[in-house]
Amino acid sequence: MKPSGIITLTTDFGRTDPYAGAVKGVILSINRDAVLVDISHDIPRGSVAEASWALMECYGFFPPGTVHLAVVDPGVGGERRPVAAASGGHFFVGPDNGVFWPAIRRPGSVTVHLNNPRYFLPVVSSTFHGRDIFAPVAARLSRGEDINSIGDIVVDPVKLEMPEPFISSGKLHGRIIRSDHFGNLISNLGRKAVTGFLGTAAPVIRIGSTEIREISSTYSSVPPGAALALFGSSGRLEIAVNGGSAAVLLNPEDREIIIEKSE
Amino acid sequence: MKPSGIITLTTDFGRTDPYAGAVKGVILSINRDAVLVDISHDIPRGSVAEASWALMECYGFFPPGTVHLAVVDPGVGGERRPVAAASGGHFFVGPDNGVFWPAIRRPGSVTVHLNNPRYFLPVVSSTFHGRDIFAPVAARLSRGEDINSIGDIVVDPVKLEMPEPFISSGKLHGRIIRSDHFGNLISNLGRKAVTGFLGTAAPVIRIGSTEIREISSTYSSVPPGAALALFGSSGRLEIAVNGGSAAVLLNPEDREIIIEKSE
Amino acid sequence: MKPSGIITLTTDFGRTDPYAGAVKGVILSINRDAVLVDISHDIPRGSVAEASWALMECYGFFPPGTVHLAVVDPGVGGERRPVAAASGGHFFVGPDNGVFWPAIRRPGSVTVHLNNPRYFLPVVSSTFHGRDIFAPVAARLSRGEDINSIGDIVVDPVKLEMPEPFISSGKLHGRIIRSDHFGNLISNLGRKAVTGFLGTAAPVIRIGSTEIREISSTYSSVPPGAALALFGSSGRLEIAVNGGSAAVLLNPEDREIIIEKSE
Repeated sequence: MKPSGIITLTTDFGRTDPYAGAVKGVILSINRDAVLVDISHDIPRGSVAEASWALMECYGFFPPGTVHLAVVDPGVGGERRPVAAASGGHFFVGPDNGVFWPAIRRPGSVTVHLNNPRYFLPVVSSTFHGRDIFAPVAARLSRGEDINSIGDIVVDPVKLEMPEPFISSGKLHGRIIRSDHFGNLISNLGRKAVTGFLGTAAPVIRIGSTEIREISSTYSSVPPGAALALFGSSGRLEIAVNGGSAAVLLNPEDREIIIEKSE
Repeated sequence: MKPSGIITLTTDFGRTDPYAGAVKGVILSINRDAVLVDISHDIPRGSVAEASWALMECYGFFPPGTVHLAVVDPGVGGERRPVAAASGGHFFVGPDNGVFWPAIRRPGSVTVHLNNPRYFLPVVSSTFHGRDIFAPVAARLSRGEDINSIGDIVVDPVKLEMPEPFISSGKLHGRIIRSDHFGNLISNLGRKAVTGFLGTAAPVIRIGSTEIREISSTYSSVPPGAALALFGSSGRLEIAVNGGSAAVLLNPEDREIIIEKSE
Repeated sequence: MKPSGIITLTTDFGRTDPYAGAVKGVILSINRDAVLVDISHDIPRGSVAEASWALMECYGFFPPGTVHLAVVDPGVGGERRPVAAASGGHFFVGPDNGVFWPAIRRPGSVTVHLNNPRYFLPVVSSTFHGRDIFAPVAARLSRGEDINSIGDIVVDPVKLEMPEPFISSGKLHGRIIRSDHFGNLISNLGRKAVTGFLGTAAPVIRIGSTEIREISSTYSSVPPGAALALFGSSGRLEIAVNGGSAAVLLNPEDREIIIEKSE
């Protein structure tokens, strides 16, 4: 795979400390011409699932051969393996904790264990593998290093457990998996799952005590302040409020979303 | 106009979600050599005026031929037009909601309606035109595409309503239009309006219950903790507190600033 | 020194206002090919020490010839000198307020007073030297301008006062100098100071009412929720909590850390 020379960064480092800066310095010391793009450094601390959702939603918009570095790594220095992977024309570098699972579960993916110190910084700390292991490996992949040469094949990468939609008693059950900056509630219900379930029937969508009886195409198709459901930019069913935040509709303990066919 | 290859981004996306990342991926997929500069992704949600002020204050410092992408777009998917403009040697791409008005109101500006899907992503969502329409158009402009070829001329771009200073009963009336990260209160009073009004007279500047009797040249020309007025880096009159925040001086309901000539 | 073409930025500008954007526009107008890397724009307002710690912890990971711009500048427009420095293969540009002191105190460093307006923007404001003085000088250094030609030598750069560890009554006394995004408490105790003091003895480390009796190598070497001490990625002794935040252990008025040899 020909590298694009682009490296994206997804971390829980925050933006006050110089941790992302150190990672970028290491990368540019190895590949001065790398193009660095921040996806987010504000992933909630230690949340592998949030990091995975953020990266999976956008990595496919980058050119083939881009390296995606993800460092949400609560197990740093412990037993978890550092890995690199190639899947669907993109590279991934980070801890083997499930963060890349939705990409690397695909047939044809290759995952390797980063167990060869000659690709690392000369001194490897036990607390900052982002800087000492992942950054130098990402930089080398962005320069064309062969992924098969930098570590041994991993056959059992850690999976990310994600709630799956299911149908029970004639109802489609999904879950809100995250809320975004605009207060939109994003579910695990893809377009196919919903339209396949509904067929030609109109929906009754229930979340908490809110009931929504159609799937809109834009935020402004309901009155300001009203709740609506639509397929968002990631292709998943979202609950939103026109001009407001849907997050207030949601009981934090109850993230269930239930769809019935209208009678 | 020869493109600089630089694209700036001004949005209300925040920095946790992967929305700015997706926009950048789309741009780099079309123009791998684009130089991307974040102006801000922390514009208050839906605040077209705040986005406009931020971009207008800094775009002129970029090289001619730079593309400025602004996505504060509460009307996405509705009636508002997507537009691109060329004005004063710079390009602008975003929704037709007034965000570019202070630049494109100038004679000689050209604004076009982005109504040709061949410049968009193959699938256009109804909720994320930043990624699906504005990013690909910005990338093409940064590569030298002719703005006249990408859409039909718009003769009535949406204006941004801004409070204008006025003189009444011998007093110059202005307004605080924003406060910055340092708590400086930035008014709509430009240097010419103030010095033209004052002539050789000394000023009496009133904001809330605070009275200031001179225009300083630096923050440290008054004692620590004291309020002062000065012409800030944008050339507008600002109220500041040496070593502190002036935002506390201001009643949020009363953003008026009144200047009289001293007797 | 051959420039790398890379310029890092460390400021207290925050990320909502267009101030970092204006600085970048000025740089790219002078050196279109400069590579810009944000270290942080979230340094606490006016905190020279925090800016210094952030930059000192990461600048050495960048390629030689990199220019490090630091604008935490509460004295802007007053008596403090604008300076540029070369030290240990890196360039530094910013106010003479101690922010670069840990780097430029080294033998062989050169510091110059930026007193030649021909290297500045044509109009210099009294409130934003980051944009009007430091950005153009940084851009010129990144293009290969000789530091000796841009200002007169400074022989007495302002020092940064930092608390130094000391031994008293057989105890090693250090201080927590900052807490990071993860709630780790980072001290001024370097590895040599601690291991030199302890020799072959086991430590008793006291911070507030917490007592720690070993130096761990990873966060996960103690049970979840337990406090530990380790040498962090900067080589300094840190107090951390496995899977939690150590910041809660610390009385904000008492940042002392005391190490004794175990009996």
